[in-house]
Amino acid sequence: MPSRHVWIGRKAMCGEAHAHRCKSCRYVSKAAVNTQADYDYDRPLMKTQVPGPRSKELTKQMGQIQNNTAINFFCNYEESRGNFLVDVDGNRMLDVYTQIASIPIGYNHPALLKVVSDPNNASAFVNRPALGILPPESFVDKLTEGLLTVAPKGLNRVQNMACGSCSNENAYKAMFIWYRNKERGTSIPSDADLSSCMINQLSILSFSGAFHGRTMGCLATTHSKPIHKLDVPSFDWPIAPFPRLQYPLDEHVRENAQEEARCLEETEDLIVKWRHKGMPVAGVVIEPIQAEGGDNHASAAFFISLRKIASKPYRIFNTWMGDPSKNLLLAEVLNVIRQENLLAEVTRTGKALLGGLYELQAKYPNLLSRARGQGTFCAIDVCKASVRDKLILQARDNGVILGGCGDLSIRFRPALIFKEHHVHMFLNVFSDLLAAHK
Amino acid sequence: MPSRHVWIGRKAMCGEAHAHRCKSCRYVSKAAVNTQADYDYDRPLMKTQVPGPRSKELTKQMGQIQNNTAINFFCNYEESRGNFLVDVDGNRMLDVYTQIASIPIGYNHPALLKVVSDPNNASAFVNRPALGILPPESFVDKLTEGLLTVAPKGLNRVQNMACGSCSNENAYKAMFIWYRNKERGTSIPSDADLSSCMINQLSILSFSGAFHGRTMGCLATTHSKPIHKLDVPSFDWPIAPFPRLQYPLDEHVRENAQEEARCLEETEDLIVKWRHKGMPVAGVVIEPIQAEGGDNHASAAFFISLRKIASKPYRIFNTWMGDPSKNLLLAEVLNVIRQENLLAEVTRTGKALLGGLYELQAKYPNLLSRARGQGTFCAIDVCKASVRDKLILQARDNGVILGGCGDLSIRFRPALIFKEHHVHMFLNVFSDLLAAHK
Repeated sequence: MPSRHVWIGRKAMCGEAHAHRCKSCRYVSKAAVNTQADYDYDRPLMKTQVPGPRSKELTKQMGQIQNNTAINFFCNYEESRGNFLVDVDGNRMLDVYTQIASIPIGYNHPALLKVVSDPNNASAFVNRPALGILPPESFVDKLTEGLLTVAPKGLNRVQNMACGSCSNENAYKAMFIWYRNKERGTSIPSDADLSSCMINQLSILSFSGAFHGRTMGCLATTHSKPIHKLDVPSFDWPIAPFPRLQYPLDEHVRENAQEEARCLEETEDLIVKWRHKGMPVAGVVIEPIQAEGGDNHASAAFFISLRKIASKPYRIFNTWMGDPSKNLLLAEVLNVIRQENLLAEVTRTGKALLGGLYELQAKYPNLLSRARGQGTFCAIDVCKASVRDKLILQARDNGVILGGCGDLSIRFRPALIFKEHHVHMFLNVFSDLLAAHK
Repeated sequence: MPSRHVWIGRKAMCGEAHAHRCKSCRYVSKAAVNTQADYDYDRPLMKTQVPGPRSKELTKQMGQIQNNTAINFFCNYEESRGNFLVDVDGNRMLDVYTQIASIPIGYNHPALLKVVSDPNNASAFVNRPALGILPPESFVDKLTEGLLTVAPKGLNRVQNMACGSCSNENAYKAMFIWYRNKERGTSIPSDADLSSCMINQLSILSFSGAFHGRTMGCLATTHSKPIHKLDVPSFDWPIAPFPRLQYPLDEHVRENAQEEARCLEETEDLIVKWRHKGMPVAGVVIEPIQAEGGDNHASAAFFISLRKIASKPYRIFNTWMGDPSKNLLLAEVLNVIRQENLLAEVTRTGKALLGGLYELQAKYPNLLSRARGQGTFCAIDVCKASVRDKLILQARDNGVILGGCGDLSIRFRPALIFKEHHVHMFLNVFSDLLAAHK
């Protein structure tokens, strides 16, 4: 680790006061006011490189009982707070990745700890029901007060499942069932239908670069990295091109419109082609923003046109179909989002983040390009995969956790409680790393 | 509801004292001593038919937001205890089905409530990590002290996943990867491997009547009911016959050995046939006892021979890969199983249950047959599906929850804290229903 990075890791991390003292060498001159709740830490604190010795020891132990090659480091979740993840070596890092975007309101949020410690909720944690047959009394109310309050307009029904892959697998099944019901004019299958159901020739259309999960139905529609699919049998289903937009958007209006039109046209061609192959497309699956595949965006107009091309629909069941204890936590997450006005906050924070990324890519055009985002769901491309990977590791040693996606992108997935001063903490570290790289 | 059932439901349910008074009309003359812990109820208590009016109202409400056709009734999990499930109409039922066998030590076990109320555990419930990259410090220890202590002999590694389908999907992927690695002599794929991985021609061999989950890879190996598979695209993978044994076993030794030999021979033939088709079998999947498909057993010798036929093997990853909060609960479940010596208990209880079923099938040979089981994992066949379904509903109205499987079977899936006196409670109700049916 070059000494400059040690300097950033060991000294710059002492916080805003220091940033004021050495304006010239840092990205941000003004420190945003820290409005963070008490339970959050105020800055990173690094004691070792990451992974440190304790993480390395535990990773070795883990290798005795399961594959450990994807392990980054081991964590002390008890000591983690808000936007800061603490590892087992006592390193405290600003988390701009949040467990692949799955800690929505930060670590150990007091509102969630209260849900778990409330004796009235204990039963939901210890008695996991088979929801599809024996739901708890509060189930309908919890869904109505929770998930349905944030459902897209016009969608007033909800089917809970335990994870993303399971949800997508069941969505695909719903599409197939819907298609065949329409075809036979009834939802009641004939005996012939039941005895000949082994190999059905229907397909789902997906997009290049997509990630929809790793179970085998989902995997047939996932195309972000070949290694995910290698060796695993798949279905011969059509794959349409996802638009590859040029940035900044306002300088490439015509090219981007042409690119989206090309992708829509090919989508229509594929639907016709697969019908002729005798494997009609029962449904289309697409991510609003392709994340794993490289944070690829498309315009609202593209999605509206695609919706017109695909004009869309039950034997959907498994033992658990979700987990009521997660429903309790979700309800509280939604409460916090509303009470703390986090969607407005995240819009402001996202503007600061994207603004910072624009400035950095203007300053380092050979290193950075294609800064893009919605809210704090942002990304930027780095010139080479090896440089991208190195920057992510260097940032971590300097107290900032980032994630990669696609071939060249760094993706930002902070919690919704990520504030402007956290943006500046990140930009300070990142800016110094870029300067050192040059 | 005929008056006799009302009598059983409303009066007989007053417990052992009553059973003593009317020996002549009940199945069991002696009531087993109730050694159940304090937190359990001592008997069913029925207030309405099931579903009662409140369950019906909630089911109607649920129909507004999702498919409600599989709902049995709505539950009051807070008031449920031990072997007794309480519904929203205040009915308290002996649960011999336990959420499709997923409440191992009964409802609201004090040891589990203690795990949830322990402030040291709160963090595990509110910070769900991406386990494959950022595990908690205690992760290896928890797996070593928990799951691995009950792993089959010789299996000293464990890959956690979030549910059964996800586990099977990943097991299949592991088989495919293992097969291709062996074939190319390295776990490092060539560029050609990576660019040509779209449609791979490998297969998994499964057995008729099997249930391995409902996601699309698992579903390709599930054959318990056509309705599970109808309309959903599948793979052309081989399906071997699962032995269909005759009962009682000791009267059909020769026929059953021949039946198992026939199934093994066909398994070998299918493996050769699929190799010739260019879709070699990468792995074999089988349930130790086929449950959903009808509680079908095979002998230890059958499994040993099958293991010889299939002499067996990582790119296995998803965001969550399980949930450490479930690990905490599992560790405590295992503690309770050891402390309360539940495996010995369940062997004794299972003997009482199976003994009772044998007696009933001897008494009602036109109604019942093929009583079978391991521990309390028992089943019995009923002459007709309609009679089986009716008996299950009648038992419920009389305070006993049972489940069906296969075409004709009733399956028993009580918690491990199910004692002999619970067996007698069930047998009393069931015996009266059979007598009334006759």
